[in-house]
This record gives sequence, C-alpha cells and structure tokens, in this order.
Amino acid sequence: MTNFARATNATPMPAISSKGRLMPPSPIRKLVPYAEAAKKRGVQVIHLNIGQPDIATPDVALDAMRKLDRKVIEYSHSAGFESYRKGLAAYYAEHGIAITHEQIIVTNGGSEALLFGMMSCFEPGDEVIIPEPYYANYNSFAVSAGVKVVPVRCTIADGFALPPIQAFEALITPRTKGILICNPGNPTGYLYSRAELETLRSIVLKHDLFLFADEVYREFCYDGAVHVSALALDGLDQHAVLIDSVSKRYSMCGARVGAFITRNTELLQTAMKFAQARLSPPTFGQLASEAALRTPKQYFDDVVAEYVQRRDILVDGLNTIPGVICAKPKGAFYCVAELPIDDSDAFCQWLLESFSHEGHTVMMAPATGFYAEPATGRTQVRLAYVLEQPQLKLAVECLREALAVYPGRLAPANAAVVESR
Amino acid sequence: MTNFARATNATPMPAISSKGRLMPPSPIRKLVPYAEAAKKRGVQVIHLNIGQPDIATPDVALDAMRKLDRKVIEYSHSAGFESYRKGLAAYYAEHGIAITHEQIIVTNGGSEALLFGMMSCFEPGDEVIIPEPYYANYNSFAVSAGVKVVPVRCTIADGFALPPIQAFEALITPRTKGILICNPGNPTGYLYSRAELETLRSIVLKHDLFLFADEVYREFCYDGAVHVSALALDGLDQHAVLIDSVSKRYSMCGARVGAFITRNTELLQTAMKFAQARLSPPTFGQLASEAALRTPKQYFDDVVAEYVQRRDILVDGLNTIPGVICAKPKGAFYCVAELPIDDSDAFCQWLLESFSHEGHTVMMAPATGFYAEPATGRTQVRLAYVLEQPQLKLAVECLREALAVYPGRLAPANAAVVESR
Repeated sequence: MTNFARATNATPMPAISSKGRLMPPSPIRKLVPYAEAAKKRGVQVIHLNIGQPDIATPDVALDAMRKLDRKVIEYSHSAGFESYRKGLAAYYAEHGIAITHEQIIVTNGGSEALLFGMMSCFEPGDEVIIPEPYYANYNSFAVSAGVKVVPVRCTIADGFALPPIQAFEALITPRTKGILICNPGNPTGYLYSRAELETLRSIVLKHDLFLFADEVYREFCYDGAVHVSALALDGLDQHAVLIDSVSKRYSMCGARVGAFITRNTELLQTAMKFAQARLSPPTFGQLASEAALRTPKQYFDDVVAEYVQRRDILVDGLNTIPGVICAKPKGAFYCVAELPIDDSDAFCQWLLESFSHEGHTVMMAPATGFYAEPATGRTQVRLAYVLEQPQLKLAVECLREALAVYPGRLAPANAAVVESR
Repeated sequence: MTNFARATNATPMPAISSKGRLMPPSPIRKLVPYAEAAKKRGVQVIHLNIGQPDIATPDVALDAMRKLDRKVIEYSHSAGFESYRKGLAAYYAEHGIAITHEQIIVTNGGSEALLFGMMSCFEPGDEVIIPEPYYANYNSFAVSAGVKVVPVRCTIADGFALPPIQAFEALITPRTKGILICNPGNPTGYLYSRAELETLRSIVLKHDLFLFADEVYREFCYDGAVHVSALALDGLDQHAVLIDSVSKRYSMCGARVGAFITRNTELLQTAMKFAQARLSPPTFGQLASEAALRTPKQYFDDVVAEYVQRRDILVDGLNTIPGVICAKPKGAFYCVAELPIDDSDAFCQWLLESFSHEGHTVMMAPATGFYAEPATGRTQVRLAYVLEQPQLKLAVECLREALAVYPGRLAPANAAVVESR
C-alpha cells in the first residue's frame, strides 16, 4: 500500500479525504515502474498482468468510426442512444435474457455501472458479500460508496467453486444488503453452474438482498459450458442487477461502454439520476458498440477457439512446474495459480527487477489485490492469457526457470502445506 | 421533485439507498416528456434548455476518427494517453497556465473530474461554498460524496458578480473545506475579474480551503474580456484544482473527455486511485481530443463572433419584454432572466403544454434547479443561446407573446417587487 503520510509541502494544504486515503491503488498497475525499468535494461516483458486482449476489434465496429458522418458530436440521452439500447435488448434476447431497452442504462464501462449500483443500493456501512478472490476494483467502488466488502472464501482446491450456502448464511448480518458475483469470474475464470446460481437466488430472496452479476465475460465460455445469467433466474426482478460491458466482448476496452440493467423500476430510476448527473455515456464508443452488434458469429467462434488453446498452453504448462497448482477455468481469460513462494508481491517484483530467461521475463498480478485481506493471496498470482500462443509458451518456461532460482522459494515441505490449504 | 415513496411491487425488494433518494433528478431534462408531447402535436420546440451547441465539431477532430488506423481499441493509461496529456500541457501554456502533463488526469468529461475532486478532498458532512445560481449537477456530485453545498448568493441586480468577501466569511464554519466556482459561469455567463479571483485566493489561503475552478467555457469570453484561470493565481499550488472539458470548446459534448488538473501532488495521487478504479478514459474521445488541439484559431474567432451576435439578439431582445430583466453575460453561452411569473417550473411546463405562437414554443430550464433552495429561483429561467440567430429571434417573440397571456403572470406591482430584490 502507498504511504499516505502527509507530504512535506512548503505551504500548508487542506487534508485529503478519508475515502481518498482508503482508496486502494491498482494492484494490477503498481508494478508498472518495475516493468518499465526492465524494458529499459533490454529485457522483453511478457504481459500477463492485465486483461487487455491482443484480439482485433471487429471491423464492423472500427468501420463505424471510419464512416462517421456526423457534423456535431453531441451528448446522447443520459441512458444512451435509444437505437443502441434497442439493439442491446435484441442481443440479450438472443442470449435468453428478456429485457426491454427501457431497462438498460448505457454507462462509461462496466466500472460506472458498478458505481451506480453501489451508490443506488447501499448505505455507508452496509455489507456486500463477494466470493473471493474477486476483481480488485470492487474494493475501489466499495470505498467510493462507503460499503464494507465481506468476502466468502473460494479455494483453489475446489477450483474456486461457489462455497456452500452455509458459508453465506454464516456471514449475513442485519447490515448485509447485497451479493456481488463475477460470472465467468475475474480473476479465477470460474463459471457458475445453474445449481450454484439457484443457491444464490435462494439466499437473495430469503434475506431480501440485491444480487449484482458482473457478466462482462459472457461470450468466453469453454468446453461446451453454457453461461446462465442472473437475469435468467426466476423471481429476481426486484433483486437482480446485470453489470455488462463491451470491453472484452469486442476487444474494445478503450470504448468505455458498459451497461446497468435491471427490471426493478425504482432502482432503475435511481441509477438514472446518477446517469443524468454525468450527462451521457461516450458518443463515439456507443456508435462503435452499436455497430459491433452486427459482429458475425464466426468472430466469437474463432476467439473462443483461440482462448481455449491459450488456456490449455498456459494452465497445462503451469501444472507441469513442480509446486505449482492451477485449476483449469471454464470461462473468461484469467487463471489464478498457487506458487511455491513466500510472497507474490515480492516474487512479481523480483521477476521484473532481478530475473530474465533468454532475455525475457513475465509480468503477473499478485493475487494479494484480489482478496479482502491481502495476506490471503500471498502465494497466488493472477495470469491473463491474452497473448499469442508462442508468448504463453515462453512465459511458462520463464516461470519454470524463475521458480527454480527465486530466493524466496518455499521448501518442498512448506510448499506441500500451501498446496493442501 | 420526483416522488420517492416505495413502489408497490408485487414482490418485496431491498431498499434504495439514502443517496439514491437524495440525488436530484436533472432539472434540465425533467421537462423532456412535455417537449416530446408538444412535438407530437406538431408544435416546433425551440430548445434553449440545454447547453448542446449546434456549432460544428472541428474537422480535424472528426478526421481523426475517419482515419482511425488502430486494430485494437485498447485501454489508455488511467490518466489518459501521454501524448494527449503532453498536448494539453502545451495548450495550457498558451493560455498562461503552467502545468506539466504529469499534473493532468484525463477524465470522462468534466463531470468525472468533479466527482474525483469531491471524493478526494471532502469528508461526508464537509461544506463547500458555491456562488449561486450554480450548475445544477454540482448538487448531484455533492450528494455522491455526501458533501453539503453552502450557497453564497449572487444577484441579478449585480449581474451575478462575486459577493463581497464578508459574505463568504459569514458562511465559513469548521466544516468548510472548499469553494467551487464556474468561470465563465453556467448558468449566469458571468466572467470573474482578476480582482474577484484575488478575493477568492485570499479566502482560500486564510482558511486553508480547496478551490475548485470549473473552467470548461474558457474560450467563450466576449467584448474583449480576458479569462483568468485559478491556476494562474500565485500561491495556490496546494489548493487549486482545475476542472476542464473539451465538450464546449470543440462542440464535442459526446466525446466525454475532461481533465482533473492540480499541482498538489498528494491530491493528484489520490485522484489517480479513483482514475485507476475505472481503468481509463475513452480512447476514441481522446484520439479526437488530441487531434482537436490542432484546431485553427480562426475556428474560435468565428465561434466567439457568432456567440456574441446570438447573445445580443437574445439578451437585448429579452430586455425589451415588459417585466423581464436579463444581465448581459461576458462569457459562456447562457443567461439567467428574471421573469414576471409566479413559478418558473410551472411556466416552462405551460410553454410546452399549453402555448404556441405561430406553431412554435420555447423550452427553457427553470432556475429552481440552479439554487440550493429551489424556491429562490422560482421567478428565473436559464436560457442557452446555442441555436442560430433566426431561432433566437423567434424565441424572443414567443416569450413576449407567452408572457402576455400566461395565467400565472405577476401583476405589474408584484413584478416590480421581484425586480427590486
């Protein structure tokens, strides 16, 4: 964590807010200066630290920009262009999600949808249960809204499956107001089964909680697995909120176009007031996103086939390294690996500062940022398989060599303890 | 205000948050359904209600989209593309503002810059003094951050000049943490003099407050008046925050590209954590904004000349209507007019619902939304002169006719009372 001791300014300055001090720095980006230094030394850094795919954005989306025929780049409706929302409603219908365009607010990425949801649903001090490890930025939105994240632990031994219903029941207090899931999951790649979602449904209804479902990786399901949306569950019209984004679907992270979707009218009207305050989501990104709705099915088939190959190379490769455990994910393009190391922050920094193998090293995200209590993730890392296959093969070899020489490597006995947790 | 009584849902639902209930609906957009109904009846609505200019976006910005040569629309740096920030630093240098690219965070419009600032600087319950009338959405960002807006009243009789320093001193409490100005001002068009800014400087330094300066209308200064930035004042490096946006400058409101700028390193690092949480500002909008930095000076000269003519038509025209008072603004493209009416919300709605003049009517923003206490603005409206001159002439004639027949018109005696306030 950054040191927030007051700077020694020449002149006095007003104090920074408590939220500002509490807000965590990005665990994914904090190693960037070390990566830059490595590159300056001539080391080639293989970036598995961030979910920025190298997959091409669909031509149909880029063509919408190239054929732009507007004279004035105006605000859109605060909920987004009606034509785009109607297109989205049709897209969801194809995915078994019955939603009208009036139940959709287009947002500045999934990030803003999460912020609108947290602000609209929760009081400062309210508790939201999140299966962990979870997407690090959930902590940031929780800090913004003053919400307390209550983690429910998933284990690598279970492949990061949903914990049993009793684990949730044990965490529910009078302040519990919601459950937040990411499905398929970042950072684990875990895809919830229908049975697991029914479990969540029953908890939500029993305790009258909001269920936020971050489904931005919907298209990325492997091995014949089928995605089940929270909005496809019965009886959750007043409880379920779908968080979505075009970032990963069309490899268009920079478009900053997401969506906040619910059938709960009062909640939708509330979120709409937050949307009006920031006037509109981005016009260019919406034009590209609306065009992207015409992306041919072949594009997704090709992308999924590519990701399956990448996953197999990375995960199977990692599991051949002594002391490494990595569950095979059924979705998204991340995996969490358990390593025989003392401290993942130190290891990831060491890889950039002190290691190279045939001129290469690997950049990963320490899993400490993906747990409510950072120490829980100290022997795990998150890897994003967003690069071409030869790069992934090279990354596995780098890690194999690195773990053989890393000074903080755990002895086999200790490693076994880690494995059995 | 919207009625936030709990909806009578068939199934129970968890409660909406207090912030969600407190968040004001947009006062600018709440009349939209009445405008839509008027259009359906065949009435032509002249839109002076919203700051969406009809001015063409510079070709150089649109060409950047048309010549897009990227294959993947990636995230940018969370602070925005470095090349764009370097271009911005050069732009500010030309405007007498010494800033490095590392003191700039590119945001999703000025809106997000304000939210980052409020979240980073203020505790829930802290007080921020804002000269009123002020941009309505400041209330929304204050609600998001739990901040209390303390208005300091500007009067139409003084042309909405900054109140004397004593008026500020009288409002300062131990919870006062900042002052927020909009310069040139929305909704008043008032441009602060250097002397007024020096007054603000002395208050800020005396009480160790943050000074937020929303300067998104910097280019729109008339009659030879010169804009003075808060960042051009001496000794405010730890206190001043510049809020900026390309929305109005390049008539590119839909780009959603703004900036949070400060020389206060600790504050910048804090805001940067909020920026990292939402990953990046929009890539397309940044590409267009970076290209827009090459907009020729002639573009601005032409736009300013056009706005001066529009302003004169609208403001001079309004002042010929009996009982109407409108100060002549020196900047931006808004004015606030005092009307001889009972209630500006009722009047603006009546214009859309029950009035037309030769097939036309006018849509304006009731000033109730621009005051901390809505009742203060009940005899005022905000008009945006963002349409072509013939439309503005027609708008004046519509208002003249409307005020002659409006059932809620104040009698001349009452009107005189209003004028003298």
